[in-house]
This record gives sequence, structure tokens and C-alpha cells, in this order.
Amino acid sequence: MIAGYGHTKFGDLGRVTSRELVVAATIEALEMTNLNRNQIDSIYLGMLSPDIFEHQMHAAPGIPDYLGLNHTPSTRIEAACASGGLSVLHGIMAVASGFHDVVLSVGAEKMTNLPTSHTTEALAMCADDIYEVASGITFPGAFAMMARAHEHKYGTNAEMRASVAVKNHKHALDNELAQFRKELTIEKAMNSLMIADPLTLYDCSPITDGAAAVIIVPWEDRADYEGIRVKVKSFSQASDTMSLHDRNDLTGFMTTKVAARKAFDRASLQPKDIDFLEVHDCFTIAEIMAIEDMGFFEKGKGGQVTLDGETARDGHLPVNASGGLKAKGHPIGATGVSQIVEVAKQLSGNAESRQLNDVQYGMTQNLGGSGSTIVCHILERGD
Amino acid sequence: MIAGYGHTKFGDLGRVTSRELVVAATIEALEMTNLNRNQIDSIYLGMLSPDIFEHQMHAAPGIPDYLGLNHTPSTRIEAACASGGLSVLHGIMAVASGFHDVVLSVGAEKMTNLPTSHTTEALAMCADDIYEVASGITFPGAFAMMARAHEHKYGTNAEMRASVAVKNHKHALDNELAQFRKELTIEKAMNSLMIADPLTLYDCSPITDGAAAVIIVPWEDRADYEGIRVKVKSFSQASDTMSLHDRNDLTGFMTTKVAARKAFDRASLQPKDIDFLEVHDCFTIAEIMAIEDMGFFEKGKGGQVTLDGETARDGHLPVNASGGLKAKGHPIGATGVSQIVEVAKQLSGNAESRQLNDVQYGMTQNLGGSGSTIVCHILERGD
Repeated sequence: MIAGYGHTKFGDLGRVTSRELVVAATIEALEMTNLNRNQIDSIYLGMLSPDIFEHQMHAAPGIPDYLGLNHTPSTRIEAACASGGLSVLHGIMAVASGFHDVVLSVGAEKMTNLPTSHTTEALAMCADDIYEVASGITFPGAFAMMARAHEHKYGTNAEMRASVAVKNHKHALDNELAQFRKELTIEKAMNSLMIADPLTLYDCSPITDGAAAVIIVPWEDRADYEGIRVKVKSFSQASDTMSLHDRNDLTGFMTTKVAARKAFDRASLQPKDIDFLEVHDCFTIAEIMAIEDMGFFEKGKGGQVTLDGETARDGHLPVNASGGLKAKGHPIGATGVSQIVEVAKQLSGNAESRQLNDVQYGMTQNLGGSGSTIVCHILERGD
Repeated sequence: MIAGYGHTKFGDLGRVTSRELVVAATIEALEMTNLNRNQIDSIYLGMLSPDIFEHQMHAAPGIPDYLGLNHTPSTRIEAACASGGLSVLHGIMAVASGFHDVVLSVGAEKMTNLPTSHTTEALAMCADDIYEVASGITFPGAFAMMARAHEHKYGTNAEMRASVAVKNHKHALDNELAQFRKELTIEKAMNSLMIADPLTLYDCSPITDGAAAVIIVPWEDRADYEGIRVKVKSFSQASDTMSLHDRNDLTGFMTTKVAARKAFDRASLQPKDIDFLEVHDCFTIAEIMAIEDMGFFEKGKGGQVTLDGETARDGHLPVNASGGLKAKGHPIGATGVSQIVEVAKQLSGNAESRQLNDVQYGMTQNLGGSGSTIVCHILERGD
């Protein structure tokens, strides 16, 4: 189960290192529980590129080092923008298997150190270098192609895409840790700077610094811990080809379908059982594809249902109540952990002014590259 | 258990990608068993920096992609030079826990693409960037300080260090996959180019391309598989401070002591039970410290016992019969997996002209950074 969580402010955090951000998030998580730091058995760190952003590889041992721990195993996992989700997944596996009793899964990225162009180039390396990056493709371009394909096949237009951004910006107004807390209108989003046709500025998630942490312990030991009790119902991971040209369809991610199906099967649940989602809206079109591919809406309807308000906080399936990557921010390695933190907050009644009512099951979808890695989790409210 | 292994030639392999090297090693491993590629449930990839060496992040999904697999989970682990060891450890955990039945753990690095100076700078990022790298420390310098400290405290001199290199070069004469297969003399080693006083050229492991792979399945299912049967007795992982200045002693690694102790305890074995070792001789002094810190020789005697031939292939505790990092080569992410492959070869009687007689237990020690990560494994001959 998730026993505690921590989450720094997301945004341009200035002269701070990712190590310091992780320590801040971890101390907050420890303080929620009655654990002291020396009880942590193992650490998983999700981080995309400490080398490019901070001139530091081998970042994992830096975490127990700065926490003042002695010799605690610490492992870095890199899976592009799904690094954080996989750090949680491996923390859960380590506890569920009985190898460890207390695992800290953290994610972080310190991205604002570099000029934006360098960051975009660094991120592009998560696509296929041989066929795509060498041809000049960066992620805005790749997702623009998907948006075009989706528009061509299903009529998903600019207004529908903009409605994702407007919704998530609205949600972030109630999230004190979000990078952007300003209301957005459909008109403003649609008329913003063209980034990669047809995606405009407000179709894209930002460059962000931040860290998030969760503490995972066995459900059977719940009586031993203060803090929250949020059950892990299931987790799943799937991969796909690196290159888009090797796939049959650009209007969705087969990986999301496979991973979501696995997560539902393992939990013995169906989409109708899930009360709310945190999905990977690195671009507005990505959220539209996610809610379709996970099985919550008919393929091709994701844009329309968003425009209709069905995925708003007061809709029948709230999506990204946190503000999502779009407005909460997207510090790469932190994102997948931050999704889990939001679900844990909602399921433990700690989401303050954005608290959803009567929620039992929350689900996450964390995406890496052009959907070459997908990680899903389903969490349940504990007793 | 380890059911199969694959291992490319180590060396300067020219115009090839790490993906292709991994595929080559994997196909060899699959062919040892009666498994087909679609039976692989999950993949762990140990790799230091596909981004710096090959302009490719998110390298893990590229492996199932190039293997022609559909949606198989694939996870990259980065722990500096211990990346490979941790990919094996996580493969073992995934199988031992029952989450997966067939796991492929692979490691690779394609390092010769860059000028040596760039590679050295990239590797240096595995030390502490804040205190060490910024002051100009690279790994030859860090290990030179350890060599000086060890010499000062225990009298471990240049001849003793050179004897490590001479032994490992001699061992590599019988390893067709080794990067260097030429006899070395103490005189030549001692008189070679000074790299970082007191370490000379032959005290240092080389820059190498290569990949290694193992297939891990449950011991209980051994009847279902062709190939070899090498039991996993135990594994362990420990971390230490990033900076050397935060440690009490430069003449050994506390992490090695902690990890080796854990591995012995979990296996209910003692150093005297182990028949041979593959340890992390990135520099000659590192092998000397490893065999002491693991508990095989009294602290301070590692140099003398090596000079005396006790760790030679015909000595009482053969160390690095493969040639070690020093002569077999050190493609960072591959190294920890390559150590496991060598132990599996020896324990299954497949080590050809370098086969050790009557071996039941083999142990590995894989080191990352300045010993900030250590991974140990103990394997046993199966029936």
C-alpha cells in the first residue's frame, strides 16, 4: 500500500539540485508516517537524464547519501517520461514479493538549467534516434502527426484539443503545487503560438523542475504505520516499437491498450469500476488518445467528451484533477510518481479544494517516448 | 536459475549499435535453451549512457523492438559501472517473486564512438559532480588516491598492482571474446605510460564495446528448459556516499563489505565456501581492495597474495579467470552481466580452455562509481 507521499512545488525552481528536491519530497513522505529514514529498505529513483540536465550520472546513490542513510540500496530507472511510473512499479514489486518491507519510490527532474532548445533536443532522444531524431523529429512534431491522424480519421479538431488544456488549467487552479495556476479560454488556447502544426503552445506541457515521493509498505502491516492507507490493486507495463513508422496506426497507442487491459485483469476490475484518472497529457492529443485507448470512451470520441465536460472534475469521469502534465507541470522523472501521489491524495481524502467525492478506485497511465513505454496503476481507497 | 547466456566479442566493434549487440547476445542465449523469443516475459537492460554514447535515451524498448517482440516490458537500469549487475539482480527478483517466469537480463555499452577524452569525461559524471567532478577528478585520479592510501597504509606497491594486470592478461589469453589477448610482463606494466600517479596504463581497464545476456527462469521449472542449470544462491546491493571525502577510509569500500556480507548471509555461506570470483577490476587497485573487502584475504594483503599467484587460475582462489575488466574489456553496462556469464560458464563446465576444476560456488562483485553502488551475486552449480 501507499503509506505516505511527498511532493515539491512544480515549476522553475531556480538554483536547486534534483537531489535536494528528492530529499524534500522524501522528508514530507516520511513525516506523514511514523517511519524514520533508517527504516527505508530500498530506494527506486525515476529520472530521465541527470547527466544532461545536471552533469551527474549514477544519481541513485546520491539520494541515500543526502538523506543520511547508510548503504541503503538505491536504483535509478530510466524509461523516458515513464521513469517515475516504473520507479513506483518496482517499489511495489519489491514489497509485494516480500524482498523489502519499506520502499521509497521517488522521481525527479531538474530541467530548467538548460536553454529550452537544448531541453527539447534532449527529450527528442527518447524517440528513435536512428529513424526519427536523425530526420529532425522532436516530440511536438511526433504528437502533431498523431493529432493530424486523429483529426483526419475521427474529426478531432483544435477546439476539442484546446478543451483538454482549458480543463486541466482549470483543475490546476486548485492545486497549490502546480506550475501554472491561471484560467485559460478555448479562444486563447486556439490562438496561441503554433508549435508544430496543428499543435499550439497550449497543446503542449511545459518544462518543469520538481520531485515526488511515495512510501510503499505491505498492506498486511498497515496497523504498524500512521499516515494513509491506499491499496495497490494492480500495476502493468508494456513496450512498443521505438519508431512510429513501425506501427499500424497513429491515432492511438497499442501499448496503452495492452497495459490498461493487463491492469484491469490483474485487479479483476473493468473501466466502469474506475472513478477517476490521472493520465499522461504531455500534449492535449495524448490525453484524448489515453482515455480512448484505456477503454473509458469509444475510439474517436475522446475529444468530444472532453469538450462536453465529461472528464472535468464535476463530470462523470474526472481526468487529471491535479491539473495534469499540462498545467501541474511535467518534471520528467517526477511525473509518474506525481500521478500516484494525486491518486493517493484523492483516495485518502487529502486533495483539499479539488477533492473528488465518493472515490474508491483511481487509475494512472504514464507514457514514455512516443508511447514506447506505458505504465498503469490502479489504486483503491483503504479502510 | 540461469538457463542460458550470450556474450558478444568485447573490443572496438566499429559501426554497430548497442541494440544490435544486445540482440546478438540475446539470440545466443535463447539458442542455448529451447525458449523462443516470445516466451520472454520481461527485459532488464543495464546501460550507463546510451544518450551520450549513441544519442539515444529510452533505450530499453528498443530491445524488444529489435527482437521482434510485441509489447514485452523492458526496463533500463543505470547504476554507473554496476548497471549490468543490477539488471541481473532485478531479473532474479522478478523471477524469484513469481511475477515473471522468463526474464532476459542484458547489459551493453557502445563506447568507442567518442574520442577517449569525451568518454573519460562522461564516465567521470558517475562520481559526485558537486564536489569531485567540478574539481577536475576523473576515475583514474580517484582510484590513484585509493592506490596511494593503500600503499601508504599497507605497502601495496607498483609491482603488486602490476601483478593483477599480468594475471588478468594471462587469463584473457584463453578467452576468445576478450578485448586484449596478449601476454603482459610486470616490467612492461610498471614501465607503461603514467595515467594518474601512481597508476600507469596497465593499471587501467580499457574503453570497450560489447553486450552480454542471461536468461533467468525458476529453478523449480528446470525440467522444462534445455541449456544450463546454474542456481542463484543470493544477491545483494548496497550504496555509499557519492563523494570520497565523506568516507572514513580510502583503502577499501565499506559498500563491498556490506554487500558481500549480505550475499553470504542470504546464501548461508562463508568466504571459504566460494571457489572462484569475478570482481570489478576497473583499476588494478580495485581488484586488490575487492578481494580484501569481500573477506577472502586479510585487509592489506590483497596485493601480496596476487603477486604470490594465489588468485591465478591455478591458485587456490581464482579471480577473474575471464580476464576481468582489465583484459576482457569493460563495456560499462555489459560488465556486470558478463561477470554472471563467466560464472555460469565455469559452473556449467562451458569455460573451455580456461575451465576451472571442481567448482561449486562462484561469486561476483560489480562496482559503480567510486564504490557508491556495489552488487554481489553468488551462483551454484546445478544438477
